[in-house]
Amino acid sequence: MSSQDVITVIEDVAEMKAYSNALRKEGKSIALVPTMGALHEGHLSLMREGRKRADILVVSIFVNPTQFGPSEDYNKYMRDREGDLEKMKNIGVDAVFMPGPDEIYPPGFQTYVQVEELEKPLCGALRPGHFRGVATVVLKLFNIVKADVALFGQKDYQQWKIIERMARDLNLDIEILGLPIVREETGLAMSSRNAYLSDQDTQRALSLSRALLEVKSQFANGTCKTESLVDSGKRVLERASVEDVDYLEIRDGETLQNKHEATGGDVAAVAARVGGARLIDNIIL
Amino acid sequence: MSSQDVITVIEDVAEMKAYSNALRKEGKSIALVPTMGALHEGHLSLMREGRKRADILVVSIFVNPTQFGPSEDYNKYMRDREGDLEKMKNIGVDAVFMPGPDEIYPPGFQTYVQVEELEKPLCGALRPGHFRGVATVVLKLFNIVKADVALFGQKDYQQWKIIERMARDLNLDIEILGLPIVREETGLAMSSRNAYLSDQDTQRALSLSRALLEVKSQFANGTCKTESLVDSGKRVLERASVEDVDYLEIRDGETLQNKHEATGGDVAAVAARVGGARLIDNIIL
Repeated sequence: MSSQDVITVIEDVAEMKAYSNALRKEGKSIALVPTMGALHEGHLSLMREGRKRADILVVSIFVNPTQFGPSEDYNKYMRDREGDLEKMKNIGVDAVFMPGPDEIYPPGFQTYVQVEELEKPLCGALRPGHFRGVATVVLKLFNIVKADVALFGQKDYQQWKIIERMARDLNLDIEILGLPIVREETGLAMSSRNAYLSDQDTQRALSLSRALLEVKSQFANGTCKTESLVDSGKRVLERASVEDVDYLEIRDGETLQNKHEATGGDVAAVAARVGGARLIDNIIL
Repeated sequence: MSSQDVITVIEDVAEMKAYSNALRKEGKSIALVPTMGALHEGHLSLMREGRKRADILVVSIFVNPTQFGPSEDYNKYMRDREGDLEKMKNIGVDAVFMPGPDEIYPPGFQTYVQVEELEKPLCGALRPGHFRGVATVVLKLFNIVKADVALFGQKDYQQWKIIERMARDLNLDIEILGLPIVREETGLAMSSRNAYLSDQDTQRALSLSRALLEVKSQFANGTCKTESLVDSGKRVLERASVEDVDYLEIRDGETLQNKHEATGGDVAAVAARVGGARLIDNIIL
């Protein structure tokens, strides 16, 4: 399908299944980019790669209530249907699946998936139920869209590892790809939540990526003790007056286990609140 | 495939997937009968129905460790590979999937599915984690075998309703069929665990189905209060000296919610220990 073509917008599950089933019968492969909308360059990079990986590119836009905690920003999360559709032009998206919450969670819904170890640390420790909601909705999207490949951003590193593990553990026939973080020129990781930041907060937010670069640079210079590495990163955050730090940790890149000594392939991950926004970022050592 | 043909025995996941994928490419439909082996007439009735429902009939035999509690009978559960294969002759089974536990749960496995409300009452209240193990392994089997239809016995009523709900909630493309309980001439529901019973225990075990028939007969005669109905059933168990009763309850046939007044379609369910065996049975009012 050429990039000039109109994007098919599908709002209900049965129609999405019929669309995918018809394509699969023709032998077409499908790539899925699951999003919550409020699209930015990070999402678009996933779509461009998805475009190359399969015959058909489906993007889902669904702000998933089950992955937000009661005190989190579900209601105020940005929703911009027309803006999102506009941004997807010229990328070659074939269909956008944008169901409402009742279509995904009809009355009586009660089945949840949990990736029990990988969801424990980092964001999982601070956002109870978050990854249960993520894994559940992603499994549903996989079953509805019947994709051969699904693309996720490495910015949500723990999410990416959880989805990879779920796909393996549940014997799904889908390839999970994690794509590098897309950053502003300043180094700030692209995020829909950056829209919450004032100009001053944006400046402070830069310290997250700088702290991770400091950790990586200390590691490259021979420091292995994770405690020392983490301290060097935390000093960068302190100097920028980012005080509301949920975590800055170094963990095994696959199991997300704690480490005393860092090794190549480990991930340094940070989460902090800047202004009204909770931001996350990570870097692979 | 004719019933004289040799049954294909498959022990590993990749081979089972390849088998099913090849058939699906040819446009063949697949019926799955998931079992833990120790086959009896109840299982065979599922297979005979499965044979009619699809082009290919696959039976899985897997004693699933994650659905047994630490004090339960996982290790002593009957395993009779040759006897099971013998019983399946002349039914028209195309393939038997008999993986080992490490094939289904390789190192690092950690993803589980829970049907959170339906798993709470009845057996779920007494066997913590049982239905989490059941739902997880059944979802894996569905993904591996890629069946169009799966057949379950109504003897495991709660299990049947949980699998039905899971399939709906996770948007699976599979039809779930529950088939009527197959009973001995005496009324005893067929169960692999009946093999644990002495002759004397078998006599006592008959009181389970009799208790349910008593409940149903009282209901047919106009008694609606579940408390009275349950009492009439419990008296039958007492008279047979079945004292170790886990539950005898009447619940909504779909939601498994408690009822004060019984209505048609409700289920009366019983679980009790007789000799060394934990037996279950149920009847629809």
